[in-house]
Formats: sequence, C-alpha cells, structure tokens
Amino acid sequence: MSEKRLRILLVGASGTLGRAVAAELSQRHEVIAAGRSSGSIRIDLTDVQSILRGLKEAGELDAVISAAGRVTFAPLADFKPAALGESLHTLGITDKLLGQVNLALAARDHLRDGGSITLTTGILSEQPIVAGSSASMVNGAVEAFVRAAAVELPRGLRINVISPTVLTEAMPSYGPFFRGFEPVTAARAALAFSRSVEGAQTGQVYKVF
Amino acid sequence: MSEKRLRILLVGASGTLGRAVAAELSQRHEVIAAGRSSGSIRIDLTDVQSILRGLKEAGELDAVISAAGRVTFAPLADFKPAALGESLHTLGITDKLLGQVNLALAARDHLRDGGSITLTTGILSEQPIVAGSSASMVNGAVEAFVRAAAVELPRGLRINVISPTVLTEAMPSYGPFFRGFEPVTAARAALAFSRSVEGAQTGQVYKVF
Ligand SMILES: NC(=O)c1ccc[n+]([C@@H]2O[C@H](COP(=O)([O-])OP(=O)(O)OC[C@H]3O[C@@H](n4cnc5c(N)ncnc54)[C@H](OP(=O)(O)O)[C@@H]3O)[C@@H](O)[C@H]2O)c1
Ligand SMILES: NC(=O)c1ccc[n+]([C@@H]2O[C@H](COP(=O)([O-])OP(=O)(O)OC[C@H]3O[C@@H](n4cnc5c(N)ncnc54)[C@H](OP(=O)(O)O)[C@@H]3O)[C@@H](O)[C@H]2O)c1
Repeated sequence: MSEKRLRILLVGASGTLGRAVAAELSQRHEVIAAGRSSGSIRIDLTDVQSILRGLKEAGELDAVISAAGRVTFAPLADFKPAALGESLHTLGITDKLLGQVNLALAARDHLRDGGSITLTTGILSEQPIVAGSSASMVNGAVEAFVRAAAVELPRGLRINVISPTVLTEAMPSYGPFFRGFEPVTAARAALAFSRSVEGAQTGQVYKVF
Repeated sequence: MSEKRLRILLVGASGTLGRAVAAELSQRHEVIAAGRSSGSIRIDLTDVQSILRGLKEAGELDAVISAAGRVTFAPLADFKPAALGESLHTLGITDKLLGQVNLALAARDHLRDGGSITLTTGILSEQPIVAGSSASMVNGAVEAFVRAAAVELPRGLRINVISPTVLTEAMPSYGPFFRGFEPVTAARAALAFSRSVEGAQTGQVYKVF
C-alpha cells in the first residue's frame, strides 16, 4: 500500500516542538514551514491578514498545523481585573487562543476535501502549575473549541489538538515550573501530530502525557 | 450545630439559573443580587470599573457567585477569521470568559479568609452542539482557569465552577439546540452552587448532568 504524499502547512516549524513535527512529517510529506520571522511563508497568528495571505500563498493543502501559540506566565497575584488589551491574559487570548482559532477558521477555505487541522495546547488545561493560570485558560478554550468545531466542519474536514506535557528539550528553561512532571521528547509529541494528520479521527485531544 | 450566616454576592440573580441559586441560598444566607439592569447592586461583567465599584459597594463578603455570562450562538460557517472586537467570539470572550475571570480576580480583595468564588459554564465545554463552538470555547476556558487559579489563591480562598446541562426552564427557547439532552431543573443546578459555597473543596468543576 503506497501512501499519498500530503501538502502540509506547519505554523511554528522553527520551534522546539515544530522542528520535531517537521522532522516526523517531512519523511513522507511536503511540509511548508511558516512563522512570524521564520519559514518560507510568513504568518503571524495575531494578524488575521497575514493568516489569509499566508494560506493563499501556500496554495491547496491537505493539512494545516499550528505548533505555535504564546501565553503570559505570571503568578496569579499579578493578574489584576482588567479590560482586554490591558490584561495579562491578552497575549494568550490573541495569540494562542484566537490566533489558532482564526488559523483553523481560515484553513477551511484552503484544505482539500477530508483535509485536517491540528492545533497545539498542553498539559496545563488539565493539570495546573503555579504561574500557569493564563496558559491553562487558553489551552482549555482551544481544546473545547476543537471538540465543538469538529461537529460542524464541512467536506469531511477534520480538526484535532495535541496536548503535550513539558518537553524534554524545554526542561532547561521550563524545568523550575514543572518539577515532578515527567517530560516527553519533542519527537514523541510529534507522533501525535502524525496521528492527527495521517489518521482519520476528528474532535480529539491527543494527550502526550 | 448552627450554621454561619454568609454574605453572598450573586451576579445574575435575576436570571433563569440565578433565581434558583438565590432561592436555594437565601434560605440560610444573606444574598445580595447584582446584574446590569437588575439587583440591588449594578455590575456589568464586561465593565471592569463596574465590577470594582459593585464589590466595594457590597462590602465584606463570604462568597461571590456568577450565574451570568453571555456568548454568541451561531453556525461555525458564520465564524470568519477576525481580530478580537470584530469576531463572533468577542461577546463570549469579553462577557462570559474575561467578565467572570475579572470578577474572580477582583473578588480576592473583598472576600473574608476562606471565602469562595463560584463561576458558571455549561455542558458544552465537554459535549458540543451545532452552533455552540463559541460557548464550548469559553466554557472550556473558564473551567481550566478555575482549576489553575485554585492552586494560587491566597488566604484559603476557594474557587469552583458549576457546569449545568440545559435547564428545564430554558427548554422552550433552547430546546431545538439540545434535542436528546436530558434537562435538569434550575433548582437542581442550584444545589451545586450551595455545594461550592457551603462545602470545602476548591478547583472543582461541579457537573450537573
Ligand atoms: N515547549 C514545551 O515544553 C511545550 C509543552 C507543551 C506545549 N507546548 C506548546 O507548544 C507550542 C510551541 O511551543 P515551543 O516550545 O515549540 O515554542 P518555541 O520554541 O518558542 O517555538 C514557537 C514557534 O512558533 C512560532 N511563532 C511564535 N509566535 C507566533 C505567532 N504569533 N504566529 C506565528 N508563529 C509564531 C515561532 O516562530 P517565529 O518566532 O518565527 O514566529 C516558532 O517557530 C506552544 O503552543 C506551547 O505552549 C510547548
Ligand atoms: N439556561 C440554561 O439552560 C443554561 C444551561 C447551562 C448553563 N447556563 C449558563 O448559566 C448562565 C446564566 O444563564 P441563564 O439562562 O440563567 O441566563 P438569563 O436567564 O439570561 O440570566 C442572565 C442573568 O445574568 C445577568 N447578566 C447578563 N449579562 C450580564 C453582564 N454582562 N454582567 C452582569 N450580569 C449580567 C442578567 O441580568 P441583567 O440583564 O440585569 O444584567 C441575568 O440576571 C450563563 O452563563 C449560561 O450560559 C445556562
């Protein structure tokens, strides 16, 4: 049985997680790298026009992946009641949450029938850490959005989300926040992206922990 | 054993759910009703200043409850990639999500030691319906925020969230969206608020379904 070679747009391809996803999928597929200041296509998730332009530039796709998404880590005591725009939640809401949601919504018009969308969250949606309340909030939002969008996408389009625990490669910087968490390698997390893209399920949260 | 009479601020006290919560808790406690255009204290969750003013007006509290939170219900096809402010997700993000989060953050300064915060989500965080993607997203965000905030609140303050399925009283209007869902009465959902306020747990999602 010979596999079909897929055209895959990977936002965040230059990151710790994204590099491993690119390494896994480019063995069998065409992976087009995107990022704000990296990749052959420039996309900033916080800028709707750049998402639309980037997808147009990419042409017809079988899969769109986000391995990006920024949030603010800060002690809960630092989070003051504040309007959006002035809140410490603003980065997470505009980048990892609405940025990924907008990428998914825009991808609908560029994916071939049966194509897939794969977003990224992380273990904090379920298992909190100190200073992680905004990350938890945003991850929980993306996961619930994915479960819901899955039942309404047209043309057999699929959508899933990968939730890795802390990555082994990130332990030098994130270690102090994740004491006692068992890290996984980015290569292992990348398998879940393969499963989402090359499998057949939709509306799934693939936990890598 | 005689119970302590608690001072409870209830945002959304005039609503379908809020009326039942008020009826349950006012049997044993002082319930101060709040809302945009109802209640003895006026609070609009989308207006940070009104939250701060309302809490100040309420004085020392043992519990702050939100039985409010608006979101936009619309088919996924109507959700276009759009910047915050121009997105169909804006109402949910600014009202049910950030409104409740801001209420919780502001409540920290007005609750007595060991006091509690109780927010509201709904079954859609876990079980999607058509046209419910924004509600799902926002509910998932609030639930994950609550799990995370619980591990960082000071002075023994607690935070929980109640996730009811569709209410019997709301079936005349919501019925067509929730075919096959088993409704619960608002009075039954109100028991979960009692459990959050009068119990001792924190970081919980009390599902009423
Ligand atoms: N590292 C971990 O341990 C870990 C664990 C669980 C989950 N995650 C999640 O995995 C995702 C990636 O994490 P990472 O550690 O791999 O991050 P990273 O090493 O900082 O890489 C981030 C990648 O995303 C791109 N990017 C950042 N902001 C962007 C934006 N607004 N628009 C488009 N591209 C953007 C970056 O490229 P440019 O700078 O060129 O834009 C880069 O390619 C995040 O959602 C993170 O929360 C990470
Ligand atoms: N009804 C259901 O079947 C059901 C099921 C599961 C979950 N829920 C959730 O339960 C909550 C309440 O639903 P409901 O059906 O009881 O709604 P409702 O009958 O429309 O009542 C909403 C209440 O909240 C107040 N309110 C609305 N927007 C507000 C704002 N921005 N700031 C402050 N107060 C505000 C309203 O008073 P004012 O108009 O005076 O502000 C009213 O007291 C919502 O989060 C809803 O998603 C409802």
